[in-house]
Amino acid sequence: MRSSTIVRVEAQDRRFALEGGAGTDAVHQISEYAFAVTNLFTDGDLCGSGLVLTLGDGNDIVCRLIAAYAARLPKVPIEELMANFGTVSRNLADDPSLRWLGPHKGAVHLALASITNACFDLWAKTRGVPLWKLLLSLTPPEIANLLDLSYLEGDLTQDDAIALMNREQETRKHRERILESGYPGYDTSVGWFQYDDRKLRENASDALHRGFRALKLKVGSADAARDIRRATLLRELAGSECKLMLDANQQWTLRQAEQVCEAVRDLNIYWIEEPTHPDDIESHVQLSRKISPMRVALGEHVPNRVMFRNFMARGAVHFVQADCTRLAGVSEFIAVSLLARKYGLPVVPHVGDMGQIHQHLVLFNHVVLGHEALFLEYIPHIRKHFVHPARVSSGRYETPQDAGLSCELKTA
Amino acid sequence: MRSSTIVRVEAQDRRFALEGGAGTDAVHQISEYAFAVTNLFTDGDLCGSGLVLTLGDGNDIVCRLIAAYAARLPKVPIEELMANFGTVSRNLADDPSLRWLGPHKGAVHLALASITNACFDLWAKTRGVPLWKLLLSLTPPEIANLLDLSYLEGDLTQDDAIALMNREQETRKHRERILESGYPGYDTSVGWFQYDDRKLRENASDALHRGFRALKLKVGSADAARDIRRATLLRELAGSECKLMLDANQQWTLRQAEQVCEAVRDLNIYWIEEPTHPDDIESHVQLSRKISPMRVALGEHVPNRVMFRNFMARGAVHFVQADCTRLAGVSEFIAVSLLARKYGLPVVPHVGDMGQIHQHLVLFNHVVLGHEALFLEYIPHIRKHFVHPARVSSGRYETPQDAGLSCELKTA
Repeated sequence: MRSSTIVRVEAQDRRFALEGGAGTDAVHQISEYAFAVTNLFTDGDLCGSGLVLTLGDGNDIVCRLIAAYAARLPKVPIEELMANFGTVSRNLADDPSLRWLGPHKGAVHLALASITNACFDLWAKTRGVPLWKLLLSLTPPEIANLLDLSYLEGDLTQDDAIALMNREQETRKHRERILESGYPGYDTSVGWFQYDDRKLRENASDALHRGFRALKLKVGSADAARDIRRATLLRELAGSECKLMLDANQQWTLRQAEQVCEAVRDLNIYWIEEPTHPDDIESHVQLSRKISPMRVALGEHVPNRVMFRNFMARGAVHFVQADCTRLAGVSEFIAVSLLARKYGLPVVPHVGDMGQIHQHLVLFNHVVLGHEALFLEYIPHIRKHFVHPARVSSGRYETPQDAGLSCELKTA
Repeated sequence: MRSSTIVRVEAQDRRFALEGGAGTDAVHQISEYAFAVTNLFTDGDLCGSGLVLTLGDGNDIVCRLIAAYAARLPKVPIEELMANFGTVSRNLADDPSLRWLGPHKGAVHLALASITNACFDLWAKTRGVPLWKLLLSLTPPEIANLLDLSYLEGDLTQDDAIALMNREQETRKHRERILESGYPGYDTSVGWFQYDDRKLRENASDALHRGFRALKLKVGSADAARDIRRATLLRELAGSECKLMLDANQQWTLRQAEQVCEAVRDLNIYWIEEPTHPDDIESHVQLSRKISPMRVALGEHVPNRVMFRNFMARGAVHFVQADCTRLAGVSEFIAVSLLARKYGLPVVPHVGDMGQIHQHLVLFNHVVLGHEALFLEYIPHIRKHFVHPARVSSGRYETPQDAGLSCELKTA
């Protein structure tokens, strides 16, 4: 094993224009993805690279906060840092000054996520393995030491986490087959908000042809009729076997959400995503009761494990869309995945990383935590900018083999 | 009335060292208060000034975000801007890019608060009146137009807000007496976390001597015995008539909170403040049930009206500590105060502004919304830096008479 001690931290502001309305939804009308990147330079030749997503403006803010946290990051060998990363993470998250800008949410939490992801990347690269392989090689206590489980004491202690992983170990061999078959994907790009019907038709046909069996449509128009018409069209195009999901990007009031969900009841919609404000747990509780058996997915704007626990405890979420570029990186993603396993809920990540890191994490979730291998969102628009872009064939993510988290970007 | 059109927006990073452990609590061990200040320069000789609190590091981040929002603020006469400020506020809060750093929380929301407060300051100065007088002069529909009530449709529409204010108008004259008597204060500075017993004794004696009849103590030690001992000591010093509040600044697990609350049950504690993580609604529900009739106060880390509504709807908060330097300024403070009135809960602001703006807002809450005139937190440590520092005598805030929000700082 090589030695790597962090000697310098660099924040990079990288932005990528999208074409022709890609990336647009009911709230985000600008086609730009940006990454606040952390690079960890070491005393050796390795460099750890992590990132979080933003939508352009504000990316510089996250970069400045990465620099602020960088000064607080212990400059020790990476193996030493990761041996008790849960404590490291908690100390950074509870910095007495920066904490005021959160706590555990918003720009400070995004910065912490970028740094955390870079630490995991450096760790995996130091061991010369892809992230999924590193995580599969750790013992349950080693996994538990990666996690800041503070404020989850009632639901998930370190002992609980270890016991859960020990229990799943019995059936783990069976689940390792996923490494051969690849993890199923779903196509989130057939129906961006600004796409017209013609493009929607073309994309749906193309996605089915490429082997996807689950498609997502952006809704949340001021004009509910548009949403209903497009959902109906997509069901016709996709046939009755294909899973269809609707994503309202928080644009509805509870009443509007109820009305559209009622109107599409016969379309067999697999989930309704982000129907209303992401902090409004009680409205999601009410909606869930009203639209059952249709189910609710959310998470891309749920900032931390404590909020997720509240959503889960109230029955306000059915598909946990945790995102390691919204939560405090890989480690809080794992904490939320453990919680979800405890509550019997599937984790279907939102992919602020375009799936690059999450393709590793869903393998871990399935093999080690026993989560169902449902499917992982796929967004291809900026894949050419990654050094090792995720490969999806026949609708499945190929298991990545390069060392690290697969989120390193080509130089600008 | 003078005309004022905003022509230039300036963000200022102001920091103030506190002395001898003042300002310290269980999570914030550094004695520094900082303000991210917005100055609105106009085509006339008036300048609007708003602020939000931070704890030093990160204040520059909020200032940069103020600059980002400044470019998006309509440059129109202040009367025109405020005529539909609810829409202005919503447009800024839902900026398609910056929204990703929230939404409606964290550094972006703090920046929006600073700008909003500056707009209200400029408006009041343009009319030549203190904020409380401006707000008391507005009609209920004019007040309602100041508010972004999106995502509250189920609880509080514009019509609901107007109806509530109309109803309270009948008994308003009676409540206007508060303008003569002044609003009661409580002393939050007797028991900062790092103060030793001797200082606690001196401060308590001094506070009682100055007319305060409510005192607060910082708790949340790793060592519960210290908290219990200090609370017992303070009760002895203050006598049985004085109200005592404990503030744990989020440091406890649910179990720890239950244990300390049980241990101080005989001390007749008026509220326990921020017992655990500020996003953990369900733990506050459980604690409230367990420690009844002791009650829970929180709000300084509740970022927006939607989260407050969830706390209220679940019975997880009893004293609503809304803060116009945490929420999106004066206008979202009013929205939360309306919600609290609807839920029958008192508003006792947390004063990130050191009470300078809130001394106006509690008068509005009492006179126009019919809230009980309970008491307002008082923190004197940096009063000398304000142009018009709040005056407290015989334990009551004197009604301010200078035009504006009273939060303008002396030049550095």
